[in-house]
Amino acid sequence: MNDPHSDPFPADSVGIVEPRKIVIQRPLTLDCGRVLPRHELMVETYGSLNIARSNAVLICHALSGDHHAAGYHSADDRKPGWWETCIGPGKPIDTNRFFVVALNNLGGCRGSTGPSTLNLDTGKPWGPDFPIVTVRDWVRSQAMLADELGIAQWATVIGGSLGGFQVLQWAIDYPARIRHAVAIAAAPKLSAQNIAFNEIARQAILSDPEFHGGHFYEHGVVPSRGLKLARMLGHITYLSDEAMRAKFGRMQKSEQFSFNFDVEFEVESYLRYQGQSFVERFDANTYLVMTKALDYFDPAREFGGDLSTAFRQAQARFLVVAFTSDWRFSPARSREIVKALVDAGRDVSYALVDSQLGHDDFLMPLPEYHRILRGYLSRTLEAGA
Amino acid sequence: MNDPHSDPFPADSVGIVEPRKIVIQRPLTLDCGRVLPRHELMVETYGSLNIARSNAVLICHALSGDHHAAGYHSADDRKPGWWETCIGPGKPIDTNRFFVVALNNLGGCRGSTGPSTLNLDTGKPWGPDFPIVTVRDWVRSQAMLADELGIAQWATVIGGSLGGFQVLQWAIDYPARIRHAVAIAAAPKLSAQNIAFNEIARQAILSDPEFHGGHFYEHGVVPSRGLKLARMLGHITYLSDEAMRAKFGRMQKSEQFSFNFDVEFEVESYLRYQGQSFVERFDANTYLVMTKALDYFDPAREFGGDLSTAFRQAQARFLVVAFTSDWRFSPARSREIVKALVDAGRDVSYALVDSQLGHDDFLMPLPEYHRILRGYLSRTLEAGA
Repeated sequence: MNDPHSDPFPADSVGIVEPRKIVIQRPLTLDCGRVLPRHELMVETYGSLNIARSNAVLICHALSGDHHAAGYHSADDRKPGWWETCIGPGKPIDTNRFFVVALNNLGGCRGSTGPSTLNLDTGKPWGPDFPIVTVRDWVRSQAMLADELGIAQWATVIGGSLGGFQVLQWAIDYPARIRHAVAIAAAPKLSAQNIAFNEIARQAILSDPEFHGGHFYEHGVVPSRGLKLARMLGHITYLSDEAMRAKFGRMQKSEQFSFNFDVEFEVESYLRYQGQSFVERFDANTYLVMTKALDYFDPAREFGGDLSTAFRQAQARFLVVAFTSDWRFSPARSREIVKALVDAGRDVSYALVDSQLGHDDFLMPLPEYHRILRGYLSRTLEAGA
Repeated sequence: MNDPHSDPFPADSVGIVEPRKIVIQRPLTLDCGRVLPRHELMVETYGSLNIARSNAVLICHALSGDHHAAGYHSADDRKPGWWETCIGPGKPIDTNRFFVVALNNLGGCRGSTGPSTLNLDTGKPWGPDFPIVTVRDWVRSQAMLADELGIAQWATVIGGSLGGFQVLQWAIDYPARIRHAVAIAAAPKLSAQNIAFNEIARQAILSDPEFHGGHFYEHGVVPSRGLKLARMLGHITYLSDEAMRAKFGRMQKSEQFSFNFDVEFEVESYLRYQGQSFVERFDANTYLVMTKALDYFDPAREFGGDLSTAFRQAQARFLVVAFTSDWRFSPARSREIVKALVDAGRDVSYALVDSQLGHDDFLMPLPEYHRILRGYLSRTLEAGA
C-alpha cells in the first residue's frame, strides 16, 4: 500500500513497490522432459485482491521484461517498471480495481530460477545446464504461482509480444482459470523470418569466445560482444522503418564523413548504446532461452497444426490488439489469431491501433490503445463478464 | 570468342571466359582525400566492341559481386558468373550485340586492388589501411577503366542494388559518357534501418577477436564468426518474409524439438550454410568497405540535399526497375528516384515487377523482368537512342 504523500511519485503511480520471491515447492515437469523439483519466482503485486478473489490480473512479460512492471523500488528510483504507463491507479490496468500480479518468468535473470541462479545440485550457476523452457512451461509455472497466491481464476491474463504468446497458451491450457485473454502485438507462431533473426542473435552469443559454452560465470566474464549484437539486432525489429527514419534519418554525429568505422550516423550511436546498456543488465543464457521459447511457440502443434481446434477448448473472452506499424508481428499475424478464434466460435474483439513506432508501440501510452484497454478491462469485473 | 561445340555449356552462355587484370597507372584521388598512385582492376568482357565503339555496356556489381558476371572459367566449372541468367547470346544483355564489361570494384577481394592485396609501400596486405572508398570513387575508377578500354561513352551502365547506386552516380558525374542508365532494385540513399543493418554487420566483424584490428592476414586467421553473422544478417534482408515462409516455413530438421541450440528449423540450417560458405570466399575488410560505401551513398548531398538538382546535370535516359517483394530497397525508394528524375526533366521509364523472392529478385530470370530489360536494351543501339 502506498501513501501518495510520502513519496515523490505521480498520484497515478503505484509508488514504491517491493519484489518478493515465491518458492514453488511442487515439481514442475517441463516440455523437454526434465523435472524441476522446486523453483523460485520473483513477483510484484499492485492493488488488492478482493474478497471474491475475482479481480486478479496476470501480466506476462516479453523477451527482456521482468516482474517489475510498475512503480519504483525506492524514493530516489528514477526508472519505473516497464509498463508504468499502463498499470496504476486510474490507468488502463487500474490498481484501484484490480489485483495485479507481475512475475519474472522461469529461466529469467531477475531473481527467478534461471541460468544465472545457483543449481542446488552442483552449487554452481545453472548456466547451459538450465533447461530450455517453453511458453507452455511458463504457463504451468504461472498456474502454480496462482495456486500459491490463492487465485483460482484470473480476471484477465494480459501481455504483449512474447507476453501475448503466454496469454494464448493460458486460454488453451487452463480454460477454467482465465476469464479474459488480452493478447497484444502477438502472433500465432513465429515466421521463418522471425526465427532467422533469433538464430542470428543466438549465433552471435554462442560464437562469442567469452561465452565459454555458457559457463562464462565461472570465468568471470560475459559474452558482451555477442549479447550486444543480439540486442542491436532485436532493436531493428522493434522499430518500424518509418520510425527510424523519423527518429534518426541520416543524421550524422559530425558534418563530415569520418572515413573510418567510428560512429558516423546517429542510428549507429543509438544501437551501440542500446546494445551496451543491455549487456549490463541481462544474462546471455537467459537471452538464448527466451529466443528458443519464441521459436518453439506454436499452440496449434498438438492440435494437428490447426489453431482453431486449439482454441475450441478455450473458454475465455479475447481481446487481440495489433499496431499498424509493427513489422515484427504485423497486424496480419494478429488477424490469423482472430480468424482461428472466430472459427472456433470464441468471443473475440480485435483492435488495430494506428501507430508509428513499430512493435515497441505495445509499451507506449498511445491514447487510442489505452482507451481500448481501459474500455475492455473496465467491463471484465461486471457481472457475467 | 567461344565455339559452342567445344564446350559443354548452353548455347546462350558466353562459355569459357578469362578474367584479366588491368592496371590503371594514373593517380586516383578518393573522396576521403587520399590518393592511390596506381590501382589494378580485375575485368571480364563478353562480346565485341563495334567499330563505332558505341555498344559497350558496363555491369556494376552489388555488395558481394565481382568481375565474373557471366560464363565459366573452365570446361568443368559448374558455377557460372553471378548474372549468367541475364548476360549471353540472345539474353537481355545480348552479347551478340553488346560489348559487356564487368569488373571487380576497387576495394574488392577478387583480385582488384583492395584490403587483401599487397600494399607496395609496405610489402604487406593493405588490411585496415586500405582507404574507405565510395560509390563516387568507384565511378571515377570505372571511368579510368573505360579510358583504358577506349570507351568514350557507355551505351548503358547497368546494375542492381549497390550496382544501381553506381549507375545513378555515373549519370550525374559523367553525363557525356553514359547514354542509358539502368538502375535496378536501388534507392537514392540508405534509410536509417538500412544503415542499422550495416552497422550490426560491421560490429560483428570488428568485434570478432580474430579480426585483429583488420590485420588478421598476418595472424593467419580470418574473423569467420563475425563475417558469418554479417552474411546471415544480409540474407534476411535479401529475402522477403513471404519467400522465407514459402521456402522454409517452420520446417524442422527432425520431427521432435531438440531442446538445445543445434539447428532446429530449416531456415537456421540455410542461414548457417550461407554464412559459412561466404566466409570461405569473401574478405572481411572488403565487407566493411562495401557497407560504408552503401552508407555514404547520397548523390544529392553535394546538391543541397536535392536529388532532382543532382539529376539536372545528367543527360542519360533512365530505366528504373523495382520489385514488389523487395523490402531492402522497396519500390517506394525507386519511386523517389523516378520522381527526382521527372522533376529534373529527365527521360525515365519505371517498371515495377511483380515478384516473390525479395531484393534478390534482381538476380533472377523473372520473365516479366527480363522482357523489360530486353525491350529497353534492344532499343539502346537504335539511331538517336
